[in-house]
Amino acid sequence: MGHNISITREGLTFPVWTFNGSVPAPTLRMTQGDHVRVTVLNSKSSIHPHSWHVHSIHSGVMDGVMGLGGMIWPGAAFTYDFIAQPYGVYPYHCHMAPVEEHINRGLYGMMIIDPVYADKRPHATEMVMLMNGYSFNNAYNPNPVEAGPPTPAEMANATTRNTIVNDQEPSNQVYTVNGMAFGYTGKDEIHLKVGQPVRIYLENMLEYDPINNFHLHGEMFHYIPTGTSDKPIMYTDIISLMQGDRGILEFAYHFPGEFCTVTLFRTMMRTY
Amino acid sequence: MGHNISITREGLTFPVWTFNGSVPAPTLRMTQGDHVRVTVLNSKSSIHPHSWHVHSIHSGVMDGVMGLGGMIWPGAAFTYDFIAQPYGVYPYHCHMAPVEEHINRGLYGMMIIDPVYADKRPHATEMVMLMNGYSFNNAYNPNPVEAGPPTPAEMANATTRNTIVNDQEPSNQVYTVNGMAFGYTGKDEIHLKVGQPVRIYLENMLEYDPINNFHLHGEMFHYIPTGTSDKPIMYTDIISLMQGDRGILEFAYHFPGEFCTVTLFRTMMRTY
Amino acid sequence: MGHNISITREGLTFPVWTFNGSVPAPTLRMTQGDHVRVTVLNSKSSIHPHSWHVHSIHSGVMDGVMGLGGMIWPGAAFTYDFIAQPYGVYPYHCHMAPVEEHINRGLYGMMIIDPVYADKRPHATEMVMLMNGYSFNNAYNPNPVEAGPPTPAEMANATTRNTIVNDQEPSNQVYTVNGMAFGYTGKDEIHLKVGQPVRIYLENMLEYDPINNFHLHGEMFHYIPTGTSDKPIMYTDIISLMQGDRGILEFAYHFPGEFCTVTLFRTMMRTY
Repeated sequence: MGHNISITREGLTFPVWTFNGSVPAPTLRMTQGDHVRVTVLNSKSSIHPHSWHVHSIHSGVMDGVMGLGGMIWPGAAFTYDFIAQPYGVYPYHCHMAPVEEHINRGLYGMMIIDPVYADKRPHATEMVMLMNGYSFNNAYNPNPVEAGPPTPAEMANATTRNTIVNDQEPSNQVYTVNGMAFGYTGKDEIHLKVGQPVRIYLENMLEYDPINNFHLHGEMFHYIPTGTSDKPIMYTDIISLMQGDRGILEFAYHFPGEFCTVTLFRTMMRTY
Repeated sequence: MGHNISITREGLTFPVWTFNGSVPAPTLRMTQGDHVRVTVLNSKSSIHPHSWHVHSIHSGVMDGVMGLGGMIWPGAAFTYDFIAQPYGVYPYHCHMAPVEEHINRGLYGMMIIDPVYADKRPHATEMVMLMNGYSFNNAYNPNPVEAGPPTPAEMANATTRNTIVNDQEPSNQVYTVNGMAFGYTGKDEIHLKVGQPVRIYLENMLEYDPINNFHLHGEMFHYIPTGTSDKPIMYTDIISLMQGDRGILEFAYHFPGEFCTVTLFRTMMRTY
Repeated sequence: MGHNISITREGLTFPVWTFNGSVPAPTLRMTQGDHVRVTVLNSKSSIHPHSWHVHSIHSGVMDGVMGLGGMIWPGAAFTYDFIAQPYGVYPYHCHMAPVEEHINRGLYGMMIIDPVYADKRPHATEMVMLMNGYSFNNAYNPNPVEAGPPTPAEMANATTRNTIVNDQEPSNQVYTVNGMAFGYTGKDEIHLKVGQPVRIYLENMLEYDPINNFHLHGEMFHYIPTGTSDKPIMYTDIISLMQGDRGILEFAYHFPGEFCTVTLFRTMMRTY
């Protein structure tokens, strides 16, 4: 399950843990009402137990936190089984503690549940953008401390606790979208036509920063939080998301040009 | 006014200051248009002046910041008198500087103003959840420095100021909901029936972190910011709140199971 | 372009860089559909290239990031030319890297595009409030390091990178609204009549803190995110904004008094 992947165009690598080999993991797409079965196999060479927790509506045994589905040991597997509901955009990720490190290592992806046929969203060029990042502080530590919450003894001793917290505090050295820093630049710029309808499924999985945002240059988008409606609640060019928050952005460029979308990562869009 | 309370199930204690003995303080509930009188008595044994500031609509003299109601000395009392409006969910807290330390110590609660009879919200099982935390850094300091804003001299000297800020910087060692870390677990889990309508009045009073959030597992909720409407603006499973922000969540579990709600604190909900 | 301005009532000064001499820069106001031309001249005495990037809809060459408009050398000028659309509230700022330092130094302002005549907003007393701040850490550094993103070599060496980041990390020592700490206090309090309709165009340009907020005491406001609609999406007393986020607040005080609006800065409003 663990291997190194490139996270910058210059070839900096990071020792990731993955679902199916990539960061982010594959996007899962289905229609509301579909019967879904996801089998997660934790490889024998894995050094940790893992799980698969997806947002949306399902029973407790399929939630990937409690019970058999909440901890899959190396070499074992579990099948998550549910009816997809309601339509919207959802993160999925490993929920083993410390969750932030399992997410930092790359164990997450997006699940899109489409509305049923009669309510289908209008045709558009669609993209998935997961905003994420990498902290090397723990990753390069050969014996990551799986600390858990502080003990009463640690909490009672503010000085010790502060030292513990400060020494371990991870922070992102690399900010990315879809796992790659500055990935959509140069020959990999996104090319769009003026007037072409675009729909972005946006999700923030960045740990170690309290908040992240997405900002479009030279254009405005309609925003549907969580993707659970067909009516946007705002028309803007910037949206702020905490960990696990997500939504749908709909827009079409009015004018040609080369535009930089961002803040913490950079993506170029070229329109004609 | 000051005493120690348990803030973890293992018995870690914190030297709180309280309104009426508990953290959070009692929830106040009324109907829009009610004439409300709240008398705050600062006990003789108190070592600081305090005040009572509530959000919502009222005159300046009842705001708990300026004038007589803005500073109640030990042994003195003040009666806040207002007509409850508009319906919604409101924090109340001591507003004496440094406000963040008076809040860290526990001087806050929730006020719910219900809509008048004709517009009453539909029947549901209701809960109040205040997200909060405790920083020991200042609390264990025998002479807390009530610093106020930096002076021009301090500001002009970046090095000194940084040292001052860094040395004093409090941070949360314990994250809680309704004053207790991991309080709604084990024998205190919340028990719900599948299909049972639930309404949570949620408020974030966490200081020293820029933002906090609430996340429901296995289910989605309708969210009404500030509780000032009967129409939710989003249907999601996660909501982010800065200090003082709050709203109403409405949902019913579709499926049975044991569900962990959260991020910074943990609350278990078991449905049947 | 660089000079010192007072940023507190006590006369603390900060070495700013400005558009037209003030922090924030002048508010630009126009009607949707207007043909707008903004000429930016970088003075000969300037020590950096600068640019002018405005949010809203326009072509790539007028975006102030790529091409000739993206970098104006000392002594040179560029004219940005566009049709104002859509109606709303927009930040403008220098987009030269490091953007956060060019913003910290004062190179930003607000552009308001009004709806066309038939959809004009109702009459109200209008105010512009830009929430901002100042970090002395870099500003007093005689040779600010324009670092850019970390190199792969820096990123690969977590220890070095952390040291680099921590040593340079700027943080706000002074929080302000419209460039002045505690500016609207004392003789400069804002005076309003009970029932007087007020509209605030609010924008957050604070760098080095992940989020900022605005809170009204004793009253509630209707909030229109980005100002791109005539329908508010919430009725509250607190709004949280990341860098570059903004909106319109509409309210009228029900009661007289002296009210403190805030969190990070302080503004007094006195009503009669």
